[in-house]
Amino acid sequence: MKKFFSAILLLSVVTSVKAQDSVTIRKFFDEALVNGQSYENLRYLCKKIGPRLSGSANAQKSVEWSKKLMDSYGFDKVYLQEVMVPHWVRGAKEQGFIIDGKTRIPVPIAALGMSVATPKDGVTATIVEVKSLKELETLGESVVKGKIVFFNGPFDQRYIETGEGYGAAGVQRFAGPSAAAKLGAVGAIVRSITPALDDYPHTGGTVYEEGGRKIPAAAISTLAANKLSNMLRLRKLPQIKFFFKQNCELLPDVRSYNVIGEITGTEKPNKIITVGGHLDSWDLAEGAHDDGTGVMQSVEVLRIFKAVGYKPKNTVRAVFFMNEENGHKGGLKYAEVAAQNKEDHLVALETDEGGFTPRGFSFQGVTAAKLKDINNNFKSLLEPYEADRLVSGGGGTDIGPLKETIPSIVLMGFRPDSQRYFDIHHTPNDVFENVNKRELELGAASIAAMVYLIDQHGL
Amino acid sequence: MKKFFSAILLLSVVTSVKAQDSVTIRKFFDEALVNGQSYENLRYLCKKIGPRLSGSANAQKSVEWSKKLMDSYGFDKVYLQEVMVPHWVRGAKEQGFIIDGKTRIPVPIAALGMSVATPKDGVTATIVEVKSLKELETLGESVVKGKIVFFNGPFDQRYIETGEGYGAAGVQRFAGPSAAAKLGAVGAIVRSITPALDDYPHTGGTVYEEGGRKIPAAAISTLAANKLSNMLRLRKLPQIKFFFKQNCELLPDVRSYNVIGEITGTEKPNKIITVGGHLDSWDLAEGAHDDGTGVMQSVEVLRIFKAVGYKPKNTVRAVFFMNEENGHKGGLKYAEVAAQNKEDHLVALETDEGGFTPRGFSFQGVTAAKLKDINNNFKSLLEPYEADRLVSGGGGTDIGPLKETIPSIVLMGFRPDSQRYFDIHHTPNDVFENVNKRELELGAASIAAMVYLIDQHGL
Repeated sequence: MKKFFSAILLLSVVTSVKAQDSVTIRKFFDEALVNGQSYENLRYLCKKIGPRLSGSANAQKSVEWSKKLMDSYGFDKVYLQEVMVPHWVRGAKEQGFIIDGKTRIPVPIAALGMSVATPKDGVTATIVEVKSLKELETLGESVVKGKIVFFNGPFDQRYIETGEGYGAAGVQRFAGPSAAAKLGAVGAIVRSITPALDDYPHTGGTVYEEGGRKIPAAAISTLAANKLSNMLRLRKLPQIKFFFKQNCELLPDVRSYNVIGEITGTEKPNKIITVGGHLDSWDLAEGAHDDGTGVMQSVEVLRIFKAVGYKPKNTVRAVFFMNEENGHKGGLKYAEVAAQNKEDHLVALETDEGGFTPRGFSFQGVTAAKLKDINNNFKSLLEPYEADRLVSGGGGTDIGPLKETIPSIVLMGFRPDSQRYFDIHHTPNDVFENVNKRELELGAASIAAMVYLIDQHGL
Repeated sequence: MKKFFSAILLLSVVTSVKAQDSVTIRKFFDEALVNGQSYENLRYLCKKIGPRLSGSANAQKSVEWSKKLMDSYGFDKVYLQEVMVPHWVRGAKEQGFIIDGKTRIPVPIAALGMSVATPKDGVTATIVEVKSLKELETLGESVVKGKIVFFNGPFDQRYIETGEGYGAAGVQRFAGPSAAAKLGAVGAIVRSITPALDDYPHTGGTVYEEGGRKIPAAAISTLAANKLSNMLRLRKLPQIKFFFKQNCELLPDVRSYNVIGEITGTEKPNKIITVGGHLDSWDLAEGAHDDGTGVMQSVEVLRIFKAVGYKPKNTVRAVFFMNEENGHKGGLKYAEVAAQNKEDHLVALETDEGGFTPRGFSFQGVTAAKLKDINNNFKSLLEPYEADRLVSGGGGTDIGPLKETIPSIVLMGFRPDSQRYFDIHHTPNDVFENVNKRELELGAASIAAMVYLIDQHGL
């Protein structure tokens, strides 16, 4: 009988806790949708500052403005965390041509981030088209040497979440140029990693193998890639050649900063929940969805807490990471300092998949049983906001290193709808105008709700 | 023991049915994403035909082209269903001014659909601003007579689904002008029904009470509405007046058509599943999301079935309804004919909430127990496609009349993400460029999956 009453008691406590959670979460959404500041903050970052690649003057401006913004919100602590970052610059705009006998057909290209320049007069060579790294390996040095390798593996449209398609095709960009260099190629042209057919070259970082040869590497638009591939099929080598010229350069490292603001926990000030995105962006546009939306959502979470009078039990920290795009130095530094200070991190949550309509959250490395618990505890509270897909999956690039230094930490990713992200990702089209105000705000409120639930109930 | 084995048997049958369903649904998505034709069909409808308000030459063109399209797909039946529709025309572009003493400030307005014109020289009057129909009633004839009523009730941002905000604020547009006329107003200006702050007047139909006075009514952009409201607050009447002039006209009814294509059921050819959207659009833009995407998804469902070799047991019909925007005559005619022919309709599913990323489906008037069953049976099969929110809610304007003539029918609505719809809805911005290819295709495949599940298992 006692057990029975205990069960009833427990049930009613659980029910009333859920009711309280529900009321609090509704307040976060009302605040975000009615008084939200993320959209106007993003407008400033995009329109008044603009592109902010690591090491640039704009990156420094964005650091200073972000700190001021956090100061203005009266958080308990606001500070900069010093980190040395690479300083890669694109230089004068790239030129690319398909050469068909005596005809030169201009095509849109953009140097991949961290690529070396071509020689001053550019590179001209015949082309080896491959659809994968494996195909490149099969061809071997005898075919590849002296050529420009054209990585033309398409984006697989069958993935429902575009992030999976990006990962699958993206390996050509991350690792292709270095693999081609090893086989004696003189340059690499990589099909833009996007489901869209458009005229934008989508830039993005490439990684040269430590100590290996470095060859110039550029992204080519998907429409131009299709054209080049068709010409190669119809006309055959060696009539078709490719020319490109790029002027990028890796300058000495620059002192920069992660920007950090926090609300100190009322009960467990030494336990930390981190929510963050990255402040740096590629140089071609405003870094609106990548990742202006993420940093503006992160700071909005803390602002919302203050605005509705929610005082977290644990310390909640908004982190604007520097240098996600071409080095990850901000994330590495944050993890290093956390380890040095023996910080007790409960959770780190990253928002770096665009400011689109919320779908849910991913949890990295939790067991199936744990994920089931999380769903049982939280799903119904997020369901009214359609942000209740709580799934297994990666956290994010910036928070990844924390797992090395603090193995007990749970890493999480905010998961907005993925359909539009890679259409604009790393292109001149990643501008403020392509962010929807309500989608951005719903994302901020969803993250606030999730941080609140973890703060209240743990994971 | 026998019971035990039966249970095991049943379980394994259910499991294998689900496995088969899962394989078939995956085929629909692959077909839509890899070989989809909805996007290029939509491009044609938007770019080669364009705006197609009922009764216009473009509406007729769209009917002819749609029939040809369905013919080209080789459906079992393709036919036109005659219906007389209203023929309202906007005439020369409207003019609107806030008059502040001797200053005239131009503001963006657009006549509401079915509105009468102003007198030839326009209407000038002082303004009564109200935030709701109730407030208008409270003011009464003594205040309202001879004035222009300015309906300025805002869109409530707190709704998570924007359709709810649209419904709540929209009553001002649907019923406001007629209510103002009854109190002696000389005109009505209605704040655009949108969560966005922009310079577009969002048009849309208004409805005059049968036999009542008719006054000219126009939508005003939300930014202009805010400006006008601020001026009224600061400057007071009667210094501030409003002038507008519009040239719209209701011409005699025109013969038009619903366009219908069907695949005849292999087992129950007399049982019908209808999937449809509306072919007509407002005159200000291309009717891309409203509702080009819906009709192109509807025909794509049948095309997908044929492409993957799925032969439905029941007859599946794609219906392009005419005249949803200003009369609903197509929907009324379809229901009337269905009743005359004693058609046995299982389900009608409408897609008229934009071609955005799928979220799920709504079911009109099903019991809570039934909805639970539907979730138990179908949710897990739609979950991989993130189209698994199966909720109670309306079907749509075009299919609504079927419930009157065939009470046993279940009405359903396709529910895409709602955040962006009312930003562009009924504005010059509702163009092809604002439709995302994958979002459109995922919607078509989701609807195909749902129609398949109903065809296989009933509801």
